Amino acid sequence: MTTAGTTKTWEDVAAGKQAAREALIPDEWRLPKETLANLPKNVLDIPRTSGLLTARELEITETTAPRLVEKLIARTYTSLEVTTAFAKRAIIAHQLTNCLTEIFIEEGLAAAKAIDDEYAQTGKPKGPLHGLPISLKDCINLPGYDSTIGIVSFANKPKTEEDASELARILREAGAVFYVKTNVPTGMLAIETVNNVWGVTPNPYNSDYGSGGSSGGEGALLALRGAPLGVGTDIGGSIRVPAAVNGVYGLKAAGGRFISLGISAGLKGQESVKSTAGPMAPDLESLSLYSKVVIGAKPWELDPTTFAIPWREVEVPEKLAFGLIIDNGLVRPTPAVERVLRETKAALEAAGHKVVEYKPYDVEQANTLLLRLLGADGADGLYNLLRAGEYPEPWPKGFEILEGIYQKYKDNPPKVGALWAAQADRNAYLRKLLKQWADSKEVTGTGRAWDGVITATLPNPAHTHYNAWYSGYTNLWNVADFTGVDFPAGVSKKTDTKPEGFEARNDTEKKAWDDYNAEGLDGIPIGLQLITPRHTEELGLKLTEVVVAALDKAKK
Amino acid sequence: MTTAGTTKTWEDVAAGKQAAREALIPDEWRLPKETLANLPKNVLDIPRTSGLLTARELEITETTAPRLVEKLIARTYTSLEVTTAFAKRAIIAHQLTNCLTEIFIEEGLAAAKAIDDEYAQTGKPKGPLHGLPISLKDCINLPGYDSTIGIVSFANKPKTEEDASELARILREAGAVFYVKTNVPTGMLAIETVNNVWGVTPNPYNSDYGSGGSSGGEGALLALRGAPLGVGTDIGGSIRVPAAVNGVYGLKAAGGRFISLGISAGLKGQESVKSTAGPMAPDLESLSLYSKVVIGAKPWELDPTTFAIPWREVEVPEKLAFGLIIDNGLVRPTPAVERVLRETKAALEAAGHKVVEYKPYDVEQANTLLLRLLGADGADGLYNLLRAGEYPEPWPKGFEILEGIYQKYKDNPPKVGALWAAQADRNAYLRKLLKQWADSKEVTGTGRAWDGVITATLPNPAHTHYNAWYSGYTNLWNVADFTGVDFPAGVSKKTDTKPEGFEARNDTEKKAWDDYNAEGLDGIPIGLQLITPRHTEELGLKLTEVVVAALDKAKK
Repeated sequence: MTTAGTTKTWEDVAAGKQAAREALIPDEWRLPKETLANLPKNVLDIPRTSGLLTARELEITETTAPRLVEKLIARTYTSLEVTTAFAKRAIIAHQLTNCLTEIFIEEGLAAAKAIDDEYAQTGKPKGPLHGLPISLKDCINLPGYDSTIGIVSFANKPKTEEDASELARILREAGAVFYVKTNVPTGMLAIETVNNVWGVTPNPYNSDYGSGGSSGGEGALLALRGAPLGVGTDIGGSIRVPAAVNGVYGLKAAGGRFISLGISAGLKGQESVKSTAGPMAPDLESLSLYSKVVIGAKPWELDPTTFAIPWREVEVPEKLAFGLIIDNGLVRPTPAVERVLRETKAALEAAGHKVVEYKPYDVEQANTLLLRLLGADGADGLYNLLRAGEYPEPWPKGFEILEGIYQKYKDNPPKVGALWAAQADRNAYLRKLLKQWADSKEVTGTGRAWDGVITATLPNPAHTHYNAWYSGYTNLWNVADFTGVDFPAGVSKKTDTKPEGFEARNDTEKKAWDDYNAEGLDGIPIGLQLITPRHTEELGLKLTEVVVAALDKAKK
Repeated sequence: MTTAGTTKTWEDVAAGKQAAREALIPDEWRLPKETLANLPKNVLDIPRTSGLLTARELEITETTAPRLVEKLIARTYTSLEVTTAFAKRAIIAHQLTNCLTEIFIEEGLAAAKAIDDEYAQTGKPKGPLHGLPISLKDCINLPGYDSTIGIVSFANKPKTEEDASELARILREAGAVFYVKTNVPTGMLAIETVNNVWGVTPNPYNSDYGSGGSSGGEGALLALRGAPLGVGTDIGGSIRVPAAVNGVYGLKAAGGRFISLGISAGLKGQESVKSTAGPMAPDLESLSLYSKVVIGAKPWELDPTTFAIPWREVEVPEKLAFGLIIDNGLVRPTPAVERVLRETKAALEAAGHKVVEYKPYDVEQANTLLLRLLGADGADGLYNLLRAGEYPEPWPKGFEILEGIYQKYKDNPPKVGALWAAQADRNAYLRKLLKQWADSKEVTGTGRAWDGVITATLPNPAHTHYNAWYSGYTNLWNVADFTGVDFPAGVSKKTDTKPEGFEARNDTEKKAWDDYNAEGLDGIPIGLQLITPRHTEELGLKLTEVVVAALDKAKK
C-alpha cells in the first residue's frame, strides 16, 4: 500500500504502480533492450520472430479457444503449458504495446496446475472452459487486485470479496484461468487507450495509431495473440472500436444479457446507458463459446443486472436482407472504410443476399442523448475521482468535452429532473428508431425487417493518438441498446486516397477526415459492425458467420 | 378546452372536469337519488339489486374474460351487447365508488359494433380479445383524452398520437374495446386513491376504507364487475394493493416484460424503479389471457421499454416448496392477515407442499432504497406539476413524505451523483437478496430454491382513508424487480381481534396496528402476494393456480 508521506504526487503513485508491474515481468521473458529500442511501427511479427516462444508455444497461441478447450480435454495440452504459452506471449505483447495493467502470472500458473492435477485425479473436466487462459479488462474486479481503470485515486486499493465480479466467478468455475488484466482509457470514457496511471497503448499494426478504446489493451493483446479470448466492456463502442482497429472480433451484447455486477466504472451507478461486458477474440467461434458458457450458468440467479434469457439457438433463412449504413448523415466514412463497406455489400449480394442502403433516424439526436445521459451528473463524479483525491491528477488529454461539462455545471449542478427528461426523450427517440427498423420490411422483400444492419465502426480505419473521439457509429447502438458484433472485414490500403474536392459538412466530419492518411493507415485492419435488435446475440453471431463466409468467398 | 379567464383556480378546473364527466352518464343508467343518498357501506350487491341490469346483462358481466371471448367468437353474444352490459355496470359502479375518470362509452359502443359488423362480414374474429371490453387505468394514454392522473395541471390537455400507448394499440388490434379509464391517487404516488381532480374512490366492501392504490379505480370497478379485465400499473404496489383490498387478482410483471411506453407518470422519465403495466381481473385465468396476448404481439419490436422474451409455458413439479413471510421484521401483519397467511400455509401443506418461514434480507434497506430512487429529484418534478402551474393545487393529504423531501431539498437540489450512488447501493443490496433466495435450496428439500414466496400485500386487510402509506411488503419486490401475483386468499373477520398486550416495535408498526379494527374490517377481502424471480410471470401465474386450488380445497 502506498501511504501519504512516502508518495507526494499523482506522478509518484503512477510511477509506483508501473514499477510494481515492471517487477512482475519474468527476466527470461524480456525482449532484448536493442529490440525494444528499435521497434518497428508494426510489431505484429515480433512474438513469432523473438525466439522467446517455442514452436509448440507458437502453435498453442495461434489456436482458437474452442480448439484449445478440446485439446485440453483430450490431454493434448495441459492447462499449465497453455497458460505458460499465453502468459509469455502476453508479456511480449505488453513490452511491445503497454497493454497490461495487473499481472498475476504466478497465480495463473498455479490455478492452471490445480486444474491439471484435479483432472488427472478425477478424469472430469472442470467445465466448458477447462483450463483456458482468459484475459480481463482492467475493470473486472478480482479480489486482491486493483481495478484502477486508469484513475490514480483507485491505485493501491485492491478489490475485496464484496466487490468481486460475478462474471469472473462464473468463468473461473467453468475452468477459465486468469493471468493478466488489460489497459483502458481513464474511467473507460474514451475510445483511445491512454491514462495517467499506465500511459498509452498504441496500435500493434502501427504505433502512430491508437489501439482504440476503451478495451484497447484487450484489442492489442488479442491482435498479438497474448490471449485466446478476452473480456471487454462497451458503453459507447468500447468493445467494438478496439476490436475493429486491432483486427479481432467483439460482441457487445444488449443490457442485461451478460453480467455487469462487480465491474468498476468511471460513472459508478450510472444505468441510463447500459455498460455491457462481452467477449473479444481473434476468431468468431470463441465469442459463441464464451456467450454460451456465461449465459448457460444462469447468471441472473445471483446477479440483479442480468435477465433470465437463456441461450436460444437460431436458424437463419437462406436468403437474408441487410440494411447497410454507408453514411450516417453526420460523418461520412473515410475512403478505406467506405470501400470495405461496398466490398461487403458486393460479397453479400454475390452470395445471394439482399443489401439495401439505410440511414438511421436522426443519429445526431442519439449521439447527443448519449452525452446527456452519461454527462448527467455534470461530470462531477469523474471530477471527484480525478481532481478531488489525495493525489489530484490533471484532466486527461482528449477529455475536453467532459472537462467542459464539468466547468459549465460545477457551480450549478444539473438536476435529476434533467436526467429523467433525457431518459424520456431517449425513449421517444427510440420509438421512432424502432418504427423505422420495423418499416424496413417494406423494402427487404423477405416479409421481415432487416435481418441485420451493417455499418462502419469508426469513420476512420483507426485514429492517430488523441484524435479518437467520434463514436457516433457505435454509440447509437448503445443508446438503442441493440446488439453489435464487430468483425474484421478488410484492410486499409494506401490506394484508398481521399476523393478530389471533398468538403466536410461540419467540424466533426472535418476532424475525422483531417486525421485520415491513406499512406499511414496502410495495412491497418478495418472492422465493421453487424447490428441486430436488443437481446438477439445469438442472431448477431450467426449472421456474422454468414457475412464473414461471404467475404472469405469473395476474396478467393 | 379550459382557458384562462374562464377558470381561475384549481378547484374550478377540477369542477369543470367533474361536470364534464357527469354529463357523460346516460340518464337511463342513473341510480335513483334516494339510493345514492342512502348508500350502505358495502355496495357490492347494488349492481344486482338496482334493476338497471337485465338478467342477461348480469350473466354477461359475471362471466370471465376468456369465456366471454369464446362466447363472442361463438356468436352467443355480440360485442355491442357485452360492451353495453359492462358500460352500464361500470357507470353503476362509478356512482357507487367514484371509480372512473374519462368516460367514452359512445366510442366504445361504436368500436364494438364495428367489430361485430366486420365479424359478420368476414367470419374472421378480430383477434384473441375479439370484442372484449377492457378498462384502463387513467395513465394509459389514448389520443383525444386526458391522462390527468389526478393532477390538475394535466387537465384539459388531451393526449396526441405521439403520446399514445403502444399497449393500448396492441390490445385494440387484438380485439379489445375501451370505454372507461379509472381513478388513481395524485401522480399514482400513493396506495390510496384520492386526488384533487376527481376526489376519493372508497372501497366497495366498506366505504370507511380505501380502495387501495394507485390502481384503486380499477380495483373498485373490477370488484363491482364493471369490467371483465383491466389494466393497472405498479411501481411500489399499485396493482397488488388495490387487487388485495378489492378481492381481485393482479399481476405485477418485472420491468421490460410488458409495455410502458405511452403511459403517463408522476415521475416522468424515472427508470431506477420500473413501473410496469399489468392486468387485474376478478379471476386468475384472465391474467394469463392478457399476458399471452400482449407478449404474443412481440411488443419489443416497437417499444424500447420491452424485452424480447416470448411467453414461455412452464410446468411446475408436483411437490413445491414455498417461502412464507409472516413478519418482515418491521411491520407485523395484523391478526386477520396473519391468520390468512397461516391458513394458506396449512392449505399448501395439506396439499403436499412444503412451506418454510423466511425473512427477506434487510427489508428496511429496500424500503429506503425505493424512497431514495423515486425521491431522487427531491420531489421537484412533482412540485412543478402540482404547485408551479397555472392553477397551483395544494399538496394532497397523505403526501407528507414527498412534501417533506421537497422542502428539505428545494434550496439545495440533490445531485445526479446521489441517484447513481443509490442505484449502485440497490445493486449491492439485491446481490445479497438474490444470494439469500438462491441459498434457500438448502432448506426446501427439493434441490431447488423457493418455487415462490408467499407474503402479505399490506400489513392490514385495508386502510381507513388517509391511513394507507406503508407499502414495504410490496415495494421490496419493485426494488428487486421480481414478479408478483396478488390473489384473494381470505376475508377479514371481526373475530380477528388484536392479541392482548401487543406492543409495536416502532412507529411504522404502531400506525398500521392503530388503524386495525377487526369489527370495521369484517368482510373485507385479504389478498396475498405470490412472488417469483424477475421475468417469471408464467411461473408466478402457474404457482398461483396451485395455491388457489389448495385454498379452495381447504375451504371445502
